[in-house]
Amino acid sequence: MESTVGQVIKCRAAVAWEAGKPLVIEEVEVAPPQAMEVRLKILYTSLCHTDVYFWEAKGQKPIFPRILGHEAAGIVESVGEGVTDLAPGDHVLPVFTGECKECAHCLSEESNMCNLLRINTDRGVMLSDGQSRFTIKGKPINHFLGTSTFSEYTVVHSGCVAKINPLAPLDKVCVLSCGFSTGFGATVNVAKPTKGSTVAVFGLGAVGLAAAEGARVSGASRIIGVDVNPKRFEEAKKFGVNEFVNPKDYDRPVQEVIAEMTGGGADRSVECTGNIDAMISAFECVHDGWGVAVLVGVPHKDAVLKTHPVNFLNERTLKGTFFGNYKPRSDLPSVVERYMNKEIELEKFITHEVTFSEINKAFDYMLQGASLRCIIRMDG
Amino acid sequence: MESTVGQVIKCRAAVAWEAGKPLVIEEVEVAPPQAMEVRLKILYTSLCHTDVYFWEAKGQKPIFPRILGHEAAGIVESVGEGVTDLAPGDHVLPVFTGECKECAHCLSEESNMCNLLRINTDRGVMLSDGQSRFTIKGKPINHFLGTSTFSEYTVVHSGCVAKINPLAPLDKVCVLSCGFSTGFGATVNVAKPTKGSTVAVFGLGAVGLAAAEGARVSGASRIIGVDVNPKRFEEAKKFGVNEFVNPKDYDRPVQEVIAEMTGGGADRSVECTGNIDAMISAFECVHDGWGVAVLVGVPHKDAVLKTHPVNFLNERTLKGTFFGNYKPRSDLPSVVERYMNKEIELEKFITHEVTFSEINKAFDYMLQGASLRCIIRMDG
Repeated sequence: MESTVGQVIKCRAAVAWEAGKPLVIEEVEVAPPQAMEVRLKILYTSLCHTDVYFWEAKGQKPIFPRILGHEAAGIVESVGEGVTDLAPGDHVLPVFTGECKECAHCLSEESNMCNLLRINTDRGVMLSDGQSRFTIKGKPINHFLGTSTFSEYTVVHSGCVAKINPLAPLDKVCVLSCGFSTGFGATVNVAKPTKGSTVAVFGLGAVGLAAAEGARVSGASRIIGVDVNPKRFEEAKKFGVNEFVNPKDYDRPVQEVIAEMTGGGADRSVECTGNIDAMISAFECVHDGWGVAVLVGVPHKDAVLKTHPVNFLNERTLKGTFFGNYKPRSDLPSVVERYMNKEIELEKFITHEVTFSEINKAFDYMLQGASLRCIIRMDG
Repeated sequence: MESTVGQVIKCRAAVAWEAGKPLVIEEVEVAPPQAMEVRLKILYTSLCHTDVYFWEAKGQKPIFPRILGHEAAGIVESVGEGVTDLAPGDHVLPVFTGECKECAHCLSEESNMCNLLRINTDRGVMLSDGQSRFTIKGKPINHFLGTSTFSEYTVVHSGCVAKINPLAPLDKVCVLSCGFSTGFGATVNVAKPTKGSTVAVFGLGAVGLAAAEGARVSGASRIIGVDVNPKRFEEAKKFGVNEFVNPKDYDRPVQEVIAEMTGGGADRSVECTGNIDAMISAFECVHDGWGVAVLVGVPHKDAVLKTHPVNFLNERTLKGTFFGNYKPRSDLPSVVERYMNKEIELEKFITHEVTFSEINKAFDYMLQGASLRCIIRMDG
C-alpha cells in the first residue's frame, strides 16, 4: 500500500450541509496533520445525543457545512511534528475534550477541564492555525468538537487522543469516548457509592444507564431508576437498576417519594437528564449527613438551580462533572482495561449497527428513542 | 465536702425571663440527673451569637423563662443510671448537639447529625421525660439546646458531653464546644484545603476566624477575608488572613473580584455569615475543575440559594456543614489535644472576660461587635 503520510487523503465523509437535513456522503480531502496533530483512520463511530443536538442546531449559532461525530475508535494514520507519544498504527479513541498535561487543570489531580483543549462547541477549525483540515473541491468544511468522526479519516489534536490496548475490539470500546464514560465516571469517580449503598439515577438513557452500570460495579445494593418514560424500565433492569420511580405517578415531589422509599434519602444520586427540576430533585433526594448528588446532564442555558440552603447545611453535597471526571489520555486506557477484564459490560449499550452509507438511519433510531447506541461501521 | 449526689443542688443561674431583657442571676434548684444524664459543674462559659439570637427571639416562638448558654467547660458532678463512660470529676465540654453512637448518622463515618440528640432549638425540657431539671421555688425553667450553661450546675444528656484531657485549661478550651470547632472543622474536615492553596473566608466573626485558623493550620498560602466591615481586617491578620475584600468597594459581584485576584477562583471557600448573597458568592468564587465551597452560616428560613447549574457542571462542589462535621464525643477530645500541642491557638479568640455576676456585659460586648469571645467565669 502506498504511503499516505504527508499527502492529502481523499475519502468519504458524511457532511451536514444544513441544520436538520439528512447527512450526505461526500468525497472530502483531508489535509495532513500539522504540528501536534494526528490523522486518524476511523473504523467505528457511534451516534450520541450531542451530535443530534448540534445537527438540529436549535437556538444555536449554525455552523455548517460541518462533519459531525465524536464518539469513535480508530487507528493513527500519521502524526504531525512534535507528536512523540503516538505513532502510526496505534489504536486510539478520539475525544471531544483534551488533556495538554501542562495547564493548571491537567496538573490538578481533581480536574479534567484542560485549559487548552477543553470542549469548544463553537469552533469549526483546528486550534493551531484556525483552519479546517477538511475541504470539498477546495472549499473548507467545518470540524466538530475537534473530532469529526463521521469521516473515514479525520485530523485531531494529539492531546485529544487516548492510546488504548490494541487488543480491544474497536466496535465496542468506541462508546467509551463519550457517553459511557460520562455516566460511568460520574458514579465511580465523583459520586463514589460504597458497597451496599443506595443510588438514584435520574434519566435512563445511555448516560444514565452507564451511571447505573457504575453503581452496579461499585456494589450498590439498591439502584433506583427515575424516568418519566416507563418503557425504559424493562431495559434498565439489565443495567442493575432494581427499583423504578416515574415522577408522573405521584402528586408530590419525587425527592419526597425517594426519601420515603429509602428511610431518609438515597446515599448518592446521579442526574443525567439536564432537566432543571430533575436536578433539584436529584439534590434534594439524597440523605442528610452524607448524601452526595452529582449533576451530569447539561441544562438549558437560562436554567436556574434553586434550593433552600438548609439542604446543604444538613450535610448534603452537590457536585457536577464533565466527561465523568476522566482525563482523556491518562484515564481512558484504564477504562478500556476494565472492559477487557469483563468488569464492565459495553455490549448491552449497543442496540443497533449500521454501515456508514446508512448513517442517517442512526439518527432516525435515536430520534425515535429506539436506540441506546448505534454503531456506524465505516467500512460499509 | 458533703456529697451532692442524688440531691437537688441550689446554685446561681442567669435566667432570661423575657426576650431581650437583661438576664437575672437567680437561685435555682437543679435536680439530680436521670438515666443517661449527667450533672455538670460549669466552670467557664462563653457567649455565642446563638445565645443572643434566642435571647432576642425575633421571629421565633418565645420560650421563656429560660437558662441560655451552650459554649462551656466543666466537671462532672454526678451521673445518672446507665452512664458508664463518664464519672464524677471528669473534665468535659457540654455540646449543643449529641452523639448516641447507635443511629445511622453516628454509625456513618461522614455524618455528625445524630438522630437522637441532634440540636433542637425549640425544646426546653430533657429528652427522657419531657421535664425540666431546673426550678425556681418549684416552678420549672426552660433548658436551652440541652446545655443551659449559664448556671453553676446543669443537667445534660450524657451523649452531649465530650470527656477531655484533664490537663486542658477549661477557661480556654470552653470555646471549642461551639464556635471555634464549627469554623475550624468546616475548613479542616470539609473544605480540606491543601498546602499552598487559596482559601476565601466569608465573614470575619469568631466562626469565620476559626475557619481562617483552619486554613492557616492546613498550610494555605493565601487566605482571603471577605467582610463588609473593614474594621475586622486588622484583627483578622492575627488569624492568618493575608488579603481582604470588602464587597462594598466594588460595583461587581465579589465572586468576580476573587476570580480576578486568584486567576480563576479560590481553591476553597468557607461561608460564615448566613447571608444568602454571600452564600452564592462563596460558591461561585471557587475555581472550576476543583473548587469546593462550604456553607456554615445559618440563613433566614425563607432564603433561597440560586445559581446556574453550569457552575456545578464545571466541576465545582458545594457542601454544607453542621458543627464542623465533628462528632462531639468522638472528635472533640482530639481538637483539645491539637490545642495542647500548640497546633491551634485559642487565646486570640478570647478578647474579653467577665464574672458570672457581670454576664450582661458579655451581651453588650457582642451586641457592640467589640468581642470575639467573652469568657464568663462562673466563680465570680
